[in-house]
Amino acid sequence: MSGNTFGKSFTVTTFGESHGPALGCIVDGCPPGLELTVEDLQGELDRRRPGTSRHTTQRQEPDTVRILSGVFEGKTTGTPIGLLIENVDQKSKDYGKIKDQFRPAHADYTYQHKYGIRDHRGGGRSSARETAMRVAAGAIARKYLQERLGIRIFGGLTALGPIEIQPVDWEAAKTNPFFCPDPSRLQELEDYMDALRKEGNSIGARITVIAEGVPPGLGEPVFDRLDADLAHGLMSINAVKGVEIGAGFASVGQKGTEHRDEMSPEGFRSNQAGGVLGGISSGQPIIASIALKPTSSLRLPGQSIDKEGNACEVITTGRHDPCVGIRATPIAEAMLALVLMDHWLRHRAQNADVVPGTPDIGRGSTWRP
Amino acid sequence: MSGNTFGKSFTVTTFGESHGPALGCIVDGCPPGLELTVEDLQGELDRRRPGTSRHTTQRQEPDTVRILSGVFEGKTTGTPIGLLIENVDQKSKDYGKIKDQFRPAHADYTYQHKYGIRDHRGGGRSSARETAMRVAAGAIARKYLQERLGIRIFGGLTALGPIEIQPVDWEAAKTNPFFCPDPSRLQELEDYMDALRKEGNSIGARITVIAEGVPPGLGEPVFDRLDADLAHGLMSINAVKGVEIGAGFASVGQKGTEHRDEMSPEGFRSNQAGGVLGGISSGQPIIASIALKPTSSLRLPGQSIDKEGNACEVITTGRHDPCVGIRATPIAEAMLALVLMDHWLRHRAQNADVVPGTPDIGRGSTWRP
Amino acid sequence: MSGNTFGKSFTVTTFGESHGPALGCIVDGCPPGLELTVEDLQGELDRRRPGTSRHTTQRQEPDTVRILSGVFEGKTTGTPIGLLIENVDQKSKDYGKIKDQFRPAHADYTYQHKYGIRDHRGGGRSSARETAMRVAAGAIARKYLQERLGIRIFGGLTALGPIEIQPVDWEAAKTNPFFCPDPSRLQELEDYMDALRKEGNSIGARITVIAEGVPPGLGEPVFDRLDADLAHGLMSINAVKGVEIGAGFASVGQKGTEHRDEMSPEGFRSNQAGGVLGGISSGQPIIASIALKPTSSLRLPGQSIDKEGNACEVITTGRHDPCVGIRATPIAEAMLALVLMDHWLRHRAQNADVVPGTPDIGRGSTWRP
Amino acid sequence: MSGNTFGKSFTVTTFGESHGPALGCIVDGCPPGLELTVEDLQGELDRRRPGTSRHTTQRQEPDTVRILSGVFEGKTTGTPIGLLIENVDQKSKDYGKIKDQFRPAHADYTYQHKYGIRDHRGGGRSSARETAMRVAAGAIARKYLQERLGIRIFGGLTALGPIEIQPVDWEAAKTNPFFCPDPSRLQELEDYMDALRKEGNSIGARITVIAEGVPPGLGEPVFDRLDADLAHGLMSINAVKGVEIGAGFASVGQKGTEHRDEMSPEGFRSNQAGGVLGGISSGQPIIASIALKPTSSLRLPGQSIDKEGNACEVITTGRHDPCVGIRATPIAEAMLALVLMDHWLRHRAQNADVVPGTPDIGRGSTWRP
Repeated sequence: MSGNTFGKSFTVTTFGESHGPALGCIVDGCPPGLELTVEDLQGELDRRRPGTSRHTTQRQEPDTVRILSGVFEGKTTGTPIGLLIENVDQKSKDYGKIKDQFRPAHADYTYQHKYGIRDHRGGGRSSARETAMRVAAGAIARKYLQERLGIRIFGGLTALGPIEIQPVDWEAAKTNPFFCPDPSRLQELEDYMDALRKEGNSIGARITVIAEGVPPGLGEPVFDRLDADLAHGLMSINAVKGVEIGAGFASVGQKGTEHRDEMSPEGFRSNQAGGVLGGISSGQPIIASIALKPTSSLRLPGQSIDKEGNACEVITTGRHDPCVGIRATPIAEAMLALVLMDHWLRHRAQNADVVPGTPDIGRGSTWRP
Repeated sequence: MSGNTFGKSFTVTTFGESHGPALGCIVDGCPPGLELTVEDLQGELDRRRPGTSRHTTQRQEPDTVRILSGVFEGKTTGTPIGLLIENVDQKSKDYGKIKDQFRPAHADYTYQHKYGIRDHRGGGRSSARETAMRVAAGAIARKYLQERLGIRIFGGLTALGPIEIQPVDWEAAKTNPFFCPDPSRLQELEDYMDALRKEGNSIGARITVIAEGVPPGLGEPVFDRLDADLAHGLMSINAVKGVEIGAGFASVGQKGTEHRDEMSPEGFRSNQAGGVLGGISSGQPIIASIALKPTSSLRLPGQSIDKEGNACEVITTGRHDPCVGIRATPIAEAMLALVLMDHWLRHRAQNADVVPGTPDIGRGSTWRP
Repeated sequence: MSGNTFGKSFTVTTFGESHGPALGCIVDGCPPGLELTVEDLQGELDRRRPGTSRHTTQRQEPDTVRILSGVFEGKTTGTPIGLLIENVDQKSKDYGKIKDQFRPAHADYTYQHKYGIRDHRGGGRSSARETAMRVAAGAIARKYLQERLGIRIFGGLTALGPIEIQPVDWEAAKTNPFFCPDPSRLQELEDYMDALRKEGNSIGARITVIAEGVPPGLGEPVFDRLDADLAHGLMSINAVKGVEIGAGFASVGQKGTEHRDEMSPEGFRSNQAGGVLGGISSGQPIIASIALKPTSSLRLPGQSIDKEGNACEVITTGRHDPCVGIRATPIAEAMLALVLMDHWLRHRAQNADVVPGTPDIGRGSTWRP
Repeated sequence: MSGNTFGKSFTVTTFGESHGPALGCIVDGCPPGLELTVEDLQGELDRRRPGTSRHTTQRQEPDTVRILSGVFEGKTTGTPIGLLIENVDQKSKDYGKIKDQFRPAHADYTYQHKYGIRDHRGGGRSSARETAMRVAAGAIARKYLQERLGIRIFGGLTALGPIEIQPVDWEAAKTNPFFCPDPSRLQELEDYMDALRKEGNSIGARITVIAEGVPPGLGEPVFDRLDADLAHGLMSINAVKGVEIGAGFASVGQKGTEHRDEMSPEGFRSNQAGGVLGGISSGQPIIASIALKPTSSLRLPGQSIDKEGNACEVITTGRHDPCVGIRATPIAEAMLALVLMDHWLRHRAQNADVVPGTPDIGRGSTWRP
């Protein structure tokens, strides 16, 4: 009932508030024997960490993670893996007004309705800070998928407000602070963000994530299709308002002859499906895109109400990302890794007996723009 | 692990293949005391039923449903509700070729990989025929939500291929075979479909569904947010490739000042959020849209491979919907009902003690285009 | 939330009331490729069926089961298996009094409290008739376990009231109506039951079930230990009031040197543990015993209250088992099969990568009294 | 799949090894608004803590717990509660032999089979040290049940080896180190334990736990009956080999007229059922007993094998409880609290609409020996 667990076979349960003492999670179901060190997790956490450029929040959190269980002599043991990150930069500022006001488009109003009480400091549980634990847990999944199955997960920014980006170099996306897969567009992005910050406004973004090398067969129809669970995972990221698989909303305007990915002994001829047919991976790259709304924390005043229902004006000062999409790539990659890992375990639970023999035409294929 | 159950508190588990003896489901967790008759279910099933116009498959299935348990003297008893629909129009045609070929963009290839065996007749388990049980189960949820909470669920076609439809009359969507919320566009739709059928091709569509009167507080952060579970449910419908909540992908291009729904004592000033903030319902209408791909069953030949990996050409004759989106509205409405019902029960499990007191500014609001 | 599903990887969801139109279940997660016919299920159902001797209820139910999905050309396909048994012998007798009275030690009172409504006919959902579906589903698990893993499941009556039975021949338990593993005691059992029936009373019983050939490694500590899930499954059978694994309550009086099963290269030297160490199967036979209370449906009058809280006297006429334990062996075996099957799938989900190498000293061992 | 979560609505997920850096858990689903401090948890932890008498292990662990999330300004917020206990007394002794040997009746052998790797230090994950987190989590449930529903949970030792104890004073059980509900037997217990320790042996025990004031209606038939979930929870405690509800195994020898609890307007006339009818609480006290096996860690040598399958002799030195049953009362109480809490939430999810009206004759009743 409680909604803080993701996955069924490979599960991640998180806890922690933005300004509480710590964030943590328990990863349960990890296969034993995987080599795992703190560095494996820290590397991914550092990618998500704020403060790496002037375009993200200036909150300083080292996000130093500890592994508290489930690893012995450098290897996973099959028992639950406890992870912990202590919060260090919770500013003891005056939250007086925010405490009694509902910031527009934030979760203040709905948490108050649901629970009758809320930790208002920095958004409490609804803060995107919670996603640090997803990234840490996702790093475990990612390592397993890479080492045991050869699955490569990557992604980047494919739109920032009005700026559409055609991916040309996914490797480049790993080395710039925008996670932009076209390095020629970086100056444009910087300029846009500088103007936006001056304006005091925020902007939406689109992120695309990809998994190459996924074996065919992952996904549990009819409800827990791979794409359905991926939609669940991706939509559960803070600020996400839309999820697409493959052609996504473009398929509304497609004819059957355009959309259907024809097959040949040499492979699929296209990948409109985004690597999923009937809810099951086809062996082609899994491709998913998400829409992230603009941050609602603005220094431009917004109309709202307080807890008593009186009108008020809200101005959000403090440290905020003007485009939450910029740091979202590692989070979306982590959710993709968690979904694939969970489905790999679920798949082999039922189907480990299946004798291979069906031609595997999709596996070698790589992402095509 | 097994993926044929939807929901956690109000669960639906379905079974059945397109050409097997029957389809069925078990609805578990329904509150006792709800008046329920077969007619309540049959009405919704008839909306989804094929053969109501020349624009859908000509397979004739009365979809007559039986209630086998969980209802006593006209009321639900709190015990599981077993539902059954016998298949009557499975044509005993020759499936020879289809048996050994993989139809492009169908689940043939992936089911074969996953299970090593598949019921090829009419797509077997991967057929959209399975959604009949979702509609039947959804009708129970819908009745409860309407009677006990005053929630109204409706929806319709908002795009068919290149034809964009601005909803002007959701009531009208209930009375035309396209579920089109603008009756002035019906002739255009008919003409488009007639031309398409002549061409032998198929087309994608977009469906929008709405729930009005949803109380604030539904949704379980951080993973089982209302929008995340809705994305899960909607993406699990056959042919769906994208899901949007509220502004959806339009939010990529929005600034914070555009997207954030300001609040006043009289209500929210807009509904870009689609009724969900921080994964919890705000009391505003829930608005979700889905993209449905064009049917892959075409009489225009497509290139593929057979089970041995040899190239082959596939032509799909038989009875198929040229636009699966046309009949998808009742299915999407059913999934929305199931998600809301499940979350209502989950919410009150944890929060039945909460003393109301927060101003409820969203509840009375109705859908605005 | 809803409690009508058993298992996590291999799940069984049942529905149906004693006097409703039908009983049914959905088995989800069955591996594909298992040969399965109606006869496989019917054989087990016939063992549980009433009316096979004068010592059980005289209700005549053929319990004819239909497979509605999930099996194609004689093999499971990996999709959910729908099973259905129509009720045929619901007597349309006058339930007038029972309708408004709470029979002592029955679920009438608690169902009324919980749901505010109940199907009083024959106990409704609380009738042991529901266990027919467990036996049907268990037969699928059993077949898989036998064919793929060589696991043999059997059991029988080890006490009927004051009559203690030392198992000497488990094969014999399969061929007598008491499921008694010592054929020399049959006359004694018959005489006891004849006297009891004349008296109008009922009696408790103990059943012991065993699984031989279980591989080491099944069970998921710390909460879903094999013995804990077995206790869950066995305690969920109607009338069960106690569950023991191995030495069970005898271990209260044992010293460590008596209880600990010493090991040698040739095998374990005893099996006080009942085949489970730390919640994980050891390879030795799994041994579990259950206590079943005497039937509460008696023609000897009992004091009770009616729905208005008035005192009343209840006499239960009609058709009832004077010792529900007699027919419980196939049910307990079915639950054991379901638990093992579920844990086999769960185990291999996480641990399919584990390289064998640990000496397997328990596997070949057989049950020792 | 993973087995480290207990409960469905009120869930507890634990992590941690005996000699790792820390133990922890996440409690998810706790209703908001409950006053909660570290002291509420610490009090229960201190009851379970070793070293309070010479009859338990001499390992010194303060078991100081921290609340890391889910509590704000002294009240629960409805978000997940993270708890942490750092291990402080892990002796860095030489584990050389134990590392390669399988201690008889321990989980060494089965963990090695299951995972192919194990943390051998102090039993790793299979150590009863894990139960500290159950006690901490149970304290939260207990507080809610007591404050909101008036449920009182208590228990004690009802047998230690050959010494049978008739409970005469449950309050006394709270104040002596044996949790013995008959203070006149304390000297006898001390003497028995002193002799046992001298002998180098260990002994089994029986614990009985009771919940008074439980409202009627808790339990989810047919599989998640209250007694079935209680059996699951209790059997998942280390060393437990049997679970009884009410009359338990004594019901094997009972006649129907003895076992059935007759009812009158003034109340139930007995409580053979142990407060559960048809898997649902009746309002009478819930009574459950468990059998705990003798500790297997003995300084008396035992025969075993090593990882290569060679015969060896095992002597367990170190710090161990000669009777694990002595400290088991707080653990069993915690599991009872967790089960009741979970079922309270599950019950009201489905049945919050039910209009009361059925006479409640059991609620006021207290435990009777």
